[in-house]
This record gives sequence, structure tokens and C-alpha cells, in this order.
Amino acid sequence: MQGIDRNTITDAVIASFARAQDPRMREVLAALVRHLHAFAREIELRPEEWRAGIAFLTAAAAITDERRNEFVLASDILGLTSLTDLLQSVPGATERSVLGPFHAEGSPLLPVGASLIGDNAGEPVLVRGRVLDMAGQPVRAATIDFWQTNAQGMYWQQDPSQPSDNLRFRMQPGDDGVYAFTTVRPAPYTVPYDGPVGALLRAGGRHAWRPAHFHFRVLAEGFAPLTTEVFPADDPYIDEDAVFGVRASLAVPFLKSDAADDAARYRLPRPFSLVEFDFRMAPVRSAQ
Amino acid sequence: MQGIDRNTITDAVIASFARAQDPRMREVLAALVRHLHAFAREIELRPEEWRAGIAFLTAAAAITDERRNEFVLASDILGLTSLTDLLQSVPGATERSVLGPFHAEGSPLLPVGASLIGDNAGEPVLVRGRVLDMAGQPVRAATIDFWQTNAQGMYWQQDPSQPSDNLRFRMQPGDDGVYAFTTVRPAPYTVPYDGPVGALLRAGGRHAWRPAHFHFRVLAEGFAPLTTEVFPADDPYIDEDAVFGVRASLAVPFLKSDAADDAARYRLPRPFSLVEFDFRMAPVRSAQ
Repeated sequence: MQGIDRNTITDAVIASFARAQDPRMREVLAALVRHLHAFAREIELRPEEWRAGIAFLTAAAAITDERRNEFVLASDILGLTSLTDLLQSVPGATERSVLGPFHAEGSPLLPVGASLIGDNAGEPVLVRGRVLDMAGQPVRAATIDFWQTNAQGMYWQQDPSQPSDNLRFRMQPGDDGVYAFTTVRPAPYTVPYDGPVGALLRAGGRHAWRPAHFHFRVLAEGFAPLTTEVFPADDPYIDEDAVFGVRASLAVPFLKSDAADDAARYRLPRPFSLVEFDFRMAPVRSAQ
Repeated sequence: MQGIDRNTITDAVIASFARAQDPRMREVLAALVRHLHAFAREIELRPEEWRAGIAFLTAAAAITDERRNEFVLASDILGLTSLTDLLQSVPGATERSVLGPFHAEGSPLLPVGASLIGDNAGEPVLVRGRVLDMAGQPVRAATIDFWQTNAQGMYWQQDPSQPSDNLRFRMQPGDDGVYAFTTVRPAPYTVPYDGPVGALLRAGGRHAWRPAHFHFRVLAEGFAPLTTEVFPADDPYIDEDAVFGVRASLAVPFLKSDAADDAARYRLPRPFSLVEFDFRMAPVRSAQ
């Protein structure tokens, strides 16, 4: 007979998983049980709080479908998504940040120097830089996958007034690793707060805002895929991102430029905003 | 600019909840974040494992409805439900155990000594004992709420072949605190294992069986409500309950009795099984 009490139950649950075939599965489940139980013991979890936790998960279930996942959002606002990204970061490489729910495959392939501005209102921005390896050499045959909101903080998938594929593209830099494009400055926006995560944010004294950002996903043969974001350093929410995606190295100045050659080359008004950002790609092995 | 890295992110998330109005909410959220992040850091949570966790929760969401809650089941098989019960236990009082999903209000009120056997096949059992306070004195005006499976391991709600309200009742002992009833021996059964929790049990090298048990909920003015279970000590699953509800003090012998007076009084065949179990109720204050 197992003598199960408030302390021994943890070892009993861990022991119940001893016959798991996969050693990593055993390790993960043992750690999950240990930390979950330590949490409950530390706060002396009350029955009504356990019920509130179950009610939170059940409400998240009710609002989750193929287009919206409240569990991902919960992970985001508790910093777990970002922590998972950070655990993959490689010193010296560009820091990672959250993928978010608006990445989609199949963005149009545009040439280096392309303009995304079209009919989009807002502050014109020239974004340029290079895709480099850890030694600072250009990475050949990289593909940049890019997406952002418009100046009202909406992605094209959320906003029927925007054309399909608005403000997103793929681009393949040449042998010099250089990419460049013109766009409009994105805007801060809120994560969805009409569900249980929103209620948690309110009860927790928090808001739902994310600072404006560009999303980048950079792929190249032999390098670890890099998912990251680039933020305007002067964004009002730069220090209080609801999903903890900001890193100091990813907050960049939106410089005012009056350069006549760039303005002519990229058909920009003067002055325009200039963002320069190089990607440092980690080799595939060191990311594992 | 917050310098968020794999270590500092935990304090950043905790700080984000600093404006929560309710101090208990702040405490619980801070502990949740600290333990959740410590778990991820300890195992160096991999992106594909984070995705597997989200997929688990999303699959649990898809199978959860008003009749079935896969999140409660996950809590059960990870021992969190039982740990919450154990944290409420009061030394000297009857140990608590899980409520389970088959409790329902409105059981028929039966007199002390009633028989539940009716058309139920199986081993006849006389169950009796007293409802006592911590000093061993009878508790007046207690109400016992009882439910169990039949000898095939099915509750009446699951099994159209059983009459409504089969094998459940409420009973009010007299001033001597004595309760008694006759029934059939319940049977082991499996928790639902056709969903993601079942997949987790299989991956974890575990089965889904619970030992047979009687469910009791005892209520009395001035005492903390007591939810518990009583198990046959010789059940084949007594040491490996899938939901960790067994306590040594709740595993009781099913004695063989040949007592002619009891057999006559309760209209039982001889020999019959005898279970004797007293409840010790904690005063309402010491349970808080």
C-alpha cells in the first residue's frame, strides 16, 4: 500500500511514469509533475482555485478553433512562448522572438528593393540590411519571409479593406546578402482580450498591447531557421510587450533620412524613415 | 529597455502582474510563472515539445463538453486533483479523496439500513459505521451522500440498462451517528482513455484503471464538507490508482461475515461481506 500524502504523492506520480518507453518523455513528465506539485504546495492551492484553473482551461477550450488558439495566447502572455524562443538562442546570432498567429506560407516572392507601400497610408520606411553568418560573411541563397500590420495595426487576414497578401513577401538576397524594401511603419495592436486570457490580463492589472513590429523568418541551407521580430525603439509599448517578445538587440531606431540617392532609388518622399538591420544566422548544428 | 533573456524573463513576467488588485491573485500568478518557467528551463524545453504541449491542450479542448472535461482528467492523472484534496486534509479527520465526475445532486433520501441491492447482481455487502467529530462523539444531523458503480464498473449515468438513481442515495443518521446500508461490491473501471489523456497514459507506460470504490460526501452543520472514497483493500489496482485517490486509511477490508442477526435484519444471504467505516469530521474552521 502506497502511503500517499501531500508530500509523497509527487514521487508516486513520477514513479507511475517509470515504464514510459522514451527516456525524454520520462524526463519531461517527471519535471512537469515535480514543478506542478511544487506550485500547488507552495501556494497551498485551494479547491476553489483549482476549480478556477479548470474553468479557465474550459473557457479557453470553448473559444479555441482553427483560427484562434487561446492556449497559445495564454503561453504568450505568461512568457512561456518567449522563454522557449530564448532557450533556442545562440550567443552571437540574432535573437529569436515569437512567430505569432499571422504567419502564413506562400507569400509573394519580390525582388530586392521592392516596395510594399502601394495604397497603404502611413509613414514611409526604407528597411535594409544583410543576411550574415556568424563570421560576418554574407549568407548565399537565403530566403527572407516577412509580414507586418498596416499603420492601423491590422494584418491583411484580419481586415477585408486590405488587398490579399498586403504587407508581406518573400525575398532572396543576392550573393552580397543584401535585402531592402520599402513599407509603412506598422502600429501597436492588442492581442485578443475578449476571452479568458483577456480576463486574466485584467485581473492581473495588465493591458493587451504589443509594440509595433516587423516579423521576419529567415531560412538558408545549413543554418538554423531564424524567427524574429524587429521593433521601433521609440514605440510606447517597447517596455511592456504583452507577450514579452522585445529584446534590446531587436529594438532599433527608425532614423529620419534625407538621402537624395535613396529617395530617388526607392521612389520615397524626403525625409523618410530608415531602418537598418543585419541578421546573424547560427549554423544548423549549434542551434540544436 | 528591459534586458529580457532566458533568466530575466521570469522576473519581467512576474513584474507585469504587480498591479493586480487582489494580493492572492498576485501571489498565485507569480508562483505559477516561476514554476512554469523553472520547468521549461530545467528541461530546456524544445520548440517541438512546446508545440506538442499546445497540441495536447487543443486536443483536450476538442473533446471537452458539458459531460466530459479532459482538463479535469489531466489534473487527475497528474495527481494535482488528489494533491489539492490532500492539502485540505486535517490531521485526525477522515482523509479526503477525489469527487470524480459522477456525483450529482438530488439522490433519493433513504432511511438508515436501506438496501440498494434491488436487481443488481454481485457480491452482497453490508456497509456501516458512524459519523463522528474529532473527539469521537456522534455528529447530529449529518447527511451522507453516496454513489458507486455496479459490479460491472458502470455508474447509472453511463449505463441505460440500470434504473435511474441506481446505487446512490442520501441518508441522515440518527443521534447515535450510525449509518448502515446494503449494496453490491463495486468494480474497478477505467477512466476515459480515448482522448489525449489516454494517449499520454499510453506514452507514459501507464494504464487507466481505478480500483473499485464507494464515493461518500458527508455534510453537517459546523463541519467542513468531507468528500472521500472507500476502497476494498484487496482490489487488484489498490496500489496503482490512475488518479491517485487511494490513501492507506481509506483502503478497508471486505470482511466475510456469517452473523445471523445482521443477515436477518438486513435480509442478506450468509455469508455476506461486511465493511465498517467511521467518518471523522473536522470542524469548519480548521479546514480553512
